[in-house]
Amino acid sequence: MKKHWVLALCMAAVSPTLSQAAESDDAIAFRQGIFHALEWNFKEMGAMAQGRTPFDAERFTLQAKRIAELAQMAGEGFIKGSETGDEVTSRASEKIWYQREHFDRLMQQLVDRSAELEALTRQTQERASLRPALARVAETCKSCHDDYRLRF
Amino acid sequence: MKKHWVLALCMAAVSPTLSQAAESDDAIAFRQGIFHALEWNFKEMGAMAQGRTPFDAERFTLQAKRIAELAQMAGEGFIKGSETGDEVTSRASEKIWYQREHFDRLMQQLVDRSAELEALTRQTQERASLRPALARVAETCKSCHDDYRLRF
Repeated sequence: MKKHWVLALCMAAVSPTLSQAAESDDAIAFRQGIFHALEWNFKEMGAMAQGRTPFDAERFTLQAKRIAELAQMAGEGFIKGSETGDEVTSRASEKIWYQREHFDRLMQQLVDRSAELEALTRQTQERASLRPALARVAETCKSCHDDYRLRF
Repeated sequence: MKKHWVLALCMAAVSPTLSQAAESDDAIAFRQGIFHALEWNFKEMGAMAQGRTPFDAERFTLQAKRIAELAQMAGEGFIKGSETGDEVTSRASEKIWYQREHFDRLMQQLVDRSAELEALTRQTQERASLRPALARVAETCKSCHDDYRLRF
């Protein structure tokens, strides 16, 4: 019984405002969180790939693994009803929800290309060889942003 | 040469404001992103563990894996100089930076306990058996929030 209370209390402590928050806000915060985490890693990989910072193969490999993991979570945040938030602002275009098949295809492309990049880091540690695979991931980001991320 | 330009252009498209943003803002957005992603998964696992929603072993297992992956990234966002943001608000207590050893120990505990939970999902699919391991992760969240997350 003790464990039940511990878990209940801890859940409350972890998320004191969850019960009040709209589900759409949670979904928006989640997907934005994943995109921020992708960006954090991607930015550093881009700088290494472009030679703006020294190439650290171990770091690049770790970050490729992270991107592959994060990519698998990203699509989940676009639940029905999360077009707009209550207290959170979303840059997601409403087109996502009526062009869902195309959007999902782009999200799957992100998953696939990230997995390809990760697989490649297990075959080579050479910057020049990894760069095109990173560019392919970036192209997917751009395609999706062009179509589905609002500019403001 | 073409690929170089593609990557450069795509990087710019992915993060149009990165060059202007303070590095501390990036770090704060990154760590908050990871915590939002943890919360998204953890909330659902907690509801299942407590019986507030039906227990879906497959989903619980996937989310345990995600938490284990995300936990490994969380600490990285607390870089030096990211105590406060420029355009982003942080709830991180400044104590983190002068009690760093203790903070890092808690972050490592999050990594370890998440890994234990993930390992357990590969041994059992029973809610009652998994619940204490989830509670242990929650206890770590709470310890760290009590000490290092500002309330406002």
